[in-house]
Amino acid sequence: MGAAYRLKTDEEEVLGVNRAFFQALESLDVEQMEAVWWHEDWVQILHPGWELIVGWDEIRESWVDIFRSTVRMRVAISHPFVHVVGDAAWVSCRPEITYTSKEGFTTAAIDVLNIFVRRNGAWRIVHHHAALVPAQPVSEVVQ
Amino acid sequence: MGAAYRLKTDEEEVLGVNRAFFQALESLDVEQMEAVWWHEDWVQILHPGWELIVGWDEIRESWVDIFRSTVRMRVAISHPFVHVVGDAAWVSCRPEITYTSKEGFTTAAIDVLNIFVRRNGAWRIVHHHAALVPAQPVSEVVQ
Repeated sequence: MGAAYRLKTDEEEVLGVNRAFFQALESLDVEQMEAVWWHEDWVQILHPGWELIVGWDEIRESWVDIFRSTVRMRVAISHPFVHVVGDAAWVSCRPEITYTSKEGFTTAAIDVLNIFVRRNGAWRIVHHHAALVPAQPVSEVVQ
Repeated sequence: MGAAYRLKTDEEEVLGVNRAFFQALESLDVEQMEAVWWHEDWVQILHPGWELIVGWDEIRESWVDIFRSTVRMRVAISHPFVHVVGDAAWVSCRPEITYTSKEGFTTAAIDVLNIFVRRNGAWRIVHHHAALVPAQPVSEVVQ
């Protein structure tokens, strides 16, 4: 029975929060997105093709805007890479995102780098950096 | 006299290595670039518009290729943001890069996220993630 009860490694915990981030993206539910971030004035997000946004309040507002204009979002992640250094960690991955708005839908590949910080045993996102993979015209993608 | 001798803060040290990274870029000198990275098989780089590269040997090779095909590189950085958590740190900034090859020159803005790790008191880069700022056609930019 021992093996079934072993604690998760740091890497598994971080990858779990990374998955929860993309599930929140698919949910279009701001509360789910709130749950995976630390709410600090120094956290940052680079949505694909946007200007960098600094601070949780502004980041939350950007999710409200994105979720409001989105009908459906589906994310397929392949090969996440995770590295942990003390109470900081990062995950790189290249999700394929299918984004449906009232105007139609588009698919984009994004190179993502997410940074996580652990506090009181809980990992949360503090930085999301999304680079559009060229090959598709930038103008067709989200925003 | 005390103030003149105060130790640098962690943030200042990290910003110093971040500057050294961009100076290495301008130098077109692989040895300068080697000096700012940890040489591990898990370090990663996303050059603007490239596939993610994993491992120092492959990253070094990419710099050799880029520096060989480059006549001149100039980088203007504005407003770097730095955050330190223990022995990990990251810097986000948006350099304007002017890149001259034998075919001509182009200017691109890049949203950069660099991650640093400290070992034995020394900070070095372990991840460079570069997102092209849309507005210019991706095809005009490096590679």
